[in-house]
Amino acid sequence: MGNPVAGNPTEREPENDTRETHTVAAPSARTTLKRGPGRAVYEHDAIRAILDEALVCHVGFVYQGTPRVIPSAYARSGDVLYLHGATANRRLRCMLDGEVCIEVTLLDGLVLARSALHHSVNYRSVVIYGRGEMVTDPAEKAEALRLIVEHAIPGRSDDVRTASSEEVRQTLVVRIPIAEASAKVRAGGPSDEDEDRVLDCWAGVIPLRNAAQAPVDDELLREGISAPSYAVDYRRPGRGD
Amino acid sequence: MGNPVAGNPTEREPENDTRETHTVAAPSARTTLKRGPGRAVYEHDAIRAILDEALVCHVGFVYQGTPRVIPSAYARSGDVLYLHGATANRRLRCMLDGEVCIEVTLLDGLVLARSALHHSVNYRSVVIYGRGEMVTDPAEKAEALRLIVEHAIPGRSDDVRTASSEEVRQTLVVRIPIAEASAKVRAGGPSDEDEDRVLDCWAGVIPLRNAAQAPVDDELLREGISAPSYAVDYRRPGRGD
Repeated sequence: MGNPVAGNPTEREPENDTRETHTVAAPSARTTLKRGPGRAVYEHDAIRAILDEALVCHVGFVYQGTPRVIPSAYARSGDVLYLHGATANRRLRCMLDGEVCIEVTLLDGLVLARSALHHSVNYRSVVIYGRGEMVTDPAEKAEALRLIVEHAIPGRSDDVRTASSEEVRQTLVVRIPIAEASAKVRAGGPSDEDEDRVLDCWAGVIPLRNAAQAPVDDELLREGISAPSYAVDYRRPGRGD
Repeated sequence: MGNPVAGNPTEREPENDTRETHTVAAPSARTTLKRGPGRAVYEHDAIRAILDEALVCHVGFVYQGTPRVIPSAYARSGDVLYLHGATANRRLRCMLDGEVCIEVTLLDGLVLARSALHHSVNYRSVVIYGRGEMVTDPAEKAEALRLIVEHAIPGRSDDVRTASSEEVRQTLVVRIPIAEASAKVRAGGPSDEDEDRVLDCWAGVIPLRNAAQAPVDDELLREGISAPSYAVDYRRPGRGD
């Protein structure tokens, strides 16, 4: 995103927008900045924090020679990402057969500059390149399924019926190492040209937040059961508000 | 997403989750449901509404044989999507050289079921397959750049300095026809197994909303300029709240 609006977080040269930083874990040709390498920060914590806050990742793979992108839930455990689906799931099968690119983006705000082309977006994004590994150990598989619920709703898994061994058997769990990965972040106000700063035009940021609202009971909810605190006070990790 | 949590909106068979619907514009082998075709709705308006509400799309392309996914701003005009970037932008160049897959997902809520594997996500997503066309006509190019600002912040483009002819020249604009496209939507409460409904466990939905907060002035904002109403009252189209 960056600058201009449609600019591209993993491709833009950081010197184009002084508000952007680039973070790389385990550098490779795909995750290393071609220019401005002084801005690269080799820092796993920044990547983990973004992965832990986001709810959905976007899985890119090649199917019959053409690109596909599919949104998916996931969980992180250490330096591993877990995804799951039905055993016949084409996306997961492709992750086992070939390379995947997993992208996660948190949208933090709209950046309103004084000129059209300097409009931008504040964001935090991660890209992971890898090849999926099928999880076959039943204990790791069950733990991955638990973590996928816990990733979305921390505290939830203690309250629900856990997957039966038959359900676990019918579910495919794929592990992707968070090895070849990078993060890119844009924060702060607009980066206008000096000569545009005299314009009679408001400039600034509209902060955006993925906010939870009051939980809605299932129509079939038994009487006398009220929403738990993790639903009433729902918020993503890393958000101080 | 769908069911289970990591299930996959464009691949899941709709009969797996009665809360999911699938919408197709201009069907193809890639956008037509393999099973449950009775649920497919050939409806452009649903696809347009999702594209108009979302702020960011996820662009998948193949580069040197491996998949890449990159977030990008965009604008829709009729049955065309516009993306832009620097003329050297690799993503845009790949869109001209080969096929792309553009995915847009709006996250509407977390679905908390009584069993772990029936946890799900309410969402509205669109997938577009196509090949980018370079926009060379200066008038269409300038209009596309205006629309990209207007897509993110309706009303904004009247207030800002429009791109100079030199800036337009240095910007690559790519047009993607919204022809081979499909939408998929999950809405409503959990789809629990009948035998799980007796469990002593809350079930329902935590609605999620991408909410704007009060605008933040640029540090260099001239005195006496206050935030315009489109920033103070910012909300996405299609949202009644």
